[in-house]
Amino acid sequence: MSKPQRITPRTLKGFRDYPPEAMIPRERLVDTARRIYRSYGFSPIDTPSLEYLEILAGKGSEETDKQLYKFQDHGQRWVGLRFDLTVPLARFAAQHVGQLGTPLKRYHIATVWRGENTQRGRYREFMQCDFDTIGTRSGAADIETALVIHDLFQAIGFSEFTIRLNNRMVLTGLLERLGLSDRSTAVLRALDKLGKIGPEAVAEEMISAAGASPEQARQVLKLSEISGDNEEVLRQVESLVADSETGQAGVAKLREILAGTAAAGVADQRLRLDVSIARGLDYYTGTVFETFLDALPGIGSVCSGGRYDNLAELYTTQELPGIGASLGLDRLLAAMEELGMIEKVSTPAPVFIPYFDKDRLHDYLRLAAALRVVGIGVEVFPDPKKLGQQLKYADRRGFRIALIAGGDEFQAGVCQVKNLQTGEKQDVPMETDAASVIAAIREILSEDAKADGLASRAGG
Amino acid sequence: MSKPQRITPRTLKGFRDYPPEAMIPRERLVDTARRIYRSYGFSPIDTPSLEYLEILAGKGSEETDKQLYKFQDHGQRWVGLRFDLTVPLARFAAQHVGQLGTPLKRYHIATVWRGENTQRGRYREFMQCDFDTIGTRSGAADIETALVIHDLFQAIGFSEFTIRLNNRMVLTGLLERLGLSDRSTAVLRALDKLGKIGPEAVAEEMISAAGASPEQARQVLKLSEISGDNEEVLRQVESLVADSETGQAGVAKLREILAGTAAAGVADQRLRLDVSIARGLDYYTGTVFETFLDALPGIGSVCSGGRYDNLAELYTTQELPGIGASLGLDRLLAAMEELGMIEKVSTPAPVFIPYFDKDRLHDYLRLAAALRVVGIGVEVFPDPKKLGQQLKYADRRGFRIALIAGGDEFQAGVCQVKNLQTGEKQDVPMETDAASVIAAIREILSEDAKADGLASRAGG
Repeated sequence: MSKPQRITPRTLKGFRDYPPEAMIPRERLVDTARRIYRSYGFSPIDTPSLEYLEILAGKGSEETDKQLYKFQDHGQRWVGLRFDLTVPLARFAAQHVGQLGTPLKRYHIATVWRGENTQRGRYREFMQCDFDTIGTRSGAADIETALVIHDLFQAIGFSEFTIRLNNRMVLTGLLERLGLSDRSTAVLRALDKLGKIGPEAVAEEMISAAGASPEQARQVLKLSEISGDNEEVLRQVESLVADSETGQAGVAKLREILAGTAAAGVADQRLRLDVSIARGLDYYTGTVFETFLDALPGIGSVCSGGRYDNLAELYTTQELPGIGASLGLDRLLAAMEELGMIEKVSTPAPVFIPYFDKDRLHDYLRLAAALRVVGIGVEVFPDPKKLGQQLKYADRRGFRIALIAGGDEFQAGVCQVKNLQTGEKQDVPMETDAASVIAAIREILSEDAKADGLASRAGG
Repeated sequence: MSKPQRITPRTLKGFRDYPPEAMIPRERLVDTARRIYRSYGFSPIDTPSLEYLEILAGKGSEETDKQLYKFQDHGQRWVGLRFDLTVPLARFAAQHVGQLGTPLKRYHIATVWRGENTQRGRYREFMQCDFDTIGTRSGAADIETALVIHDLFQAIGFSEFTIRLNNRMVLTGLLERLGLSDRSTAVLRALDKLGKIGPEAVAEEMISAAGASPEQARQVLKLSEISGDNEEVLRQVESLVADSETGQAGVAKLREILAGTAAAGVADQRLRLDVSIARGLDYYTGTVFETFLDALPGIGSVCSGGRYDNLAELYTTQELPGIGASLGLDRLLAAMEELGMIEKVSTPAPVFIPYFDKDRLHDYLRLAAALRVVGIGVEVFPDPKKLGQQLKYADRRGFRIALIAGGDEFQAGVCQVKNLQTGEKQDVPMETDAASVIAAIREILSEDAKADGLASRAGG
């Protein structure tokens, strides 16, 4: 064969390879999200990555449109890569809700693409992790959404986090009172930037972009000055929107969520009313959520969402109200890394068996099989290289335990169990079912789990 | 707001929505594959969906090139959507193997795209599920690949399946002997079609496309007539390639795999030598595998792979030998459906709590929370509709158990546990921790698991 011309291996700007060290914590996080979503009866769905451009561009802003990956396919149809999971959900619901019925509770964990400016540290391909309940206006679904977020962060391993809660109707009520109803979108878009750009810049934007008066802007911003515990905040807000039916309905919804989550066992301090939260997106009409890590509030919300009245109006006359939220995987993983919550390993298996004695491959295979039967992940090195070289490999990968045995050990019916973190070694009898070896492995792994409070890797 | 113009919700030809009923078994299958891959120390990786066209088209055949989704991105770069996971693996390995070291054992479960002719029942977007061991020539990796395939099908729930095994060196040895070495690619490509088009058509293709003589074609096809148990086949093959060193090396490798898998506990009948298996792809050089379901051999191989000498020659001068295989998810799911192995449910949670008494939402939430704490998935209906309507919903979704309680029941401290499959009801005391309810649920779910031999859905 003639030698081919070489091509430099590289990825596109804004796109990433995930080596094992990055992928293992991602998979674990996605697994946790799925487990929690499923525990509430949310079902998985998937939709095509490629859709008719017309479907994707339907309601999009100029910005989304600019960022859309679009092209003509083999049949000269204009198609695009999905840029979020909400538009596909709307299209999916419009198409299938008649057959599937409501409430339609789905989660969708999938890749989306945006031709973003990578200078802002954004990626052009990333994963979204959404859950929604469609087809009900009941406050029970709002409570449940808060419960899911709560359970999710607890399951990931956070004890200190705050779900900030508001209701767009409270804001609508206030804007009514201030005579700003017709400019609510622009006003709320400005308000949404409060955390990022501060009150003065927000006031300026309300005046310049939304045409509010300085006094009106000041009144809206007063919302962000409301503080105290949830009960105190409710009282102040109630008086602010006393003459607005919409505003009062919003306050009632907030009370309902606080009472419901408390009944289900959520600690008071996990939910906090924050009436300055608006969420930028136009389609939210009721409850809105943002979630902050108490240790790293500066990174922004890691799980956000809210209630909408009409998900799929572009695709169907059927009104589909609902509520949902989206876990910010990349942001959360960056935060967990910063907080030292991510183990640096590049193997999902805890146990390593060096191929120490070149005549004993079958014995190693038998031993590994006995461990796998009881759910312990184990890798057997494929080449009978020097033991030191193999153990270096095991260290680099992050295995926890090595099982070392040669002809003498097999003859004597023992096996050396080496804790690769502490260096401790022990000789353990090796039965056919490897019961003693398994017990020794489990002891080391359960010490690990106790020491760092993380889920054990015993499952491989 | 003005009413927007409606867009008909639809998907592109060759692309599919996965509603819950289709997605739940897919997720379960993918989970099983991951669990088995991980139990052998294979680590997850991911690579971008979009790559430089140059990278993807590098070595492709005319057919792949025609099927590639390609376009110019925002920066006018020619890019393409990956059409398999092997080319990205080669690029990834060339780029990162220096840092990651070998053996590099990775699995990759991800979407690929091909602009195929949909009339052949093919989809243009589908998932691949690959695992590979790169950087070793050791037969231990070949044995392990067979073990992974074996454990995978056993874990999915198949007791009757056959891994058909061959080694390309056996074929190479035979072709050497027949003077067909220079035409081996075309000859083997024809041979690979044996199962689909039969021996006569294969002989014709060998003559017309590979320039073999009728006698040469007949000699090659004699391979497919070799039958008997593995030992018998080995003896016949050995005599056929007695004067070829390559052929004999291939036979030795086959013996090594049979002995190794037997040592690890694989039953004899699960692996079967089939020297007519060639695999169409040029890059296989040693062991090749195909996996057939004994109950449905006609659907073809559901897991195939093999050994290659040089994975990434297009991207690096470093020689990267390896071995791997790919699970055919779609084909396997279709087979499982045909074999009645797929539960028709569209909820991942087993337990349903109707919102029966409108004043008792908090009690339902508390009960649900108590079940989730012990790992039982449970959905609370969001609206206090008529009980019959809610139970109809529960049936349609496929919940297994309903917990029915109103004011009277809560007062009396009991709860009705209803088996939705049999209709049986029992009143169970309801403690704060719901211990009796949990015990009743577990009993029903464990009966299920016993009855159908499938994994219980208790985990939600």
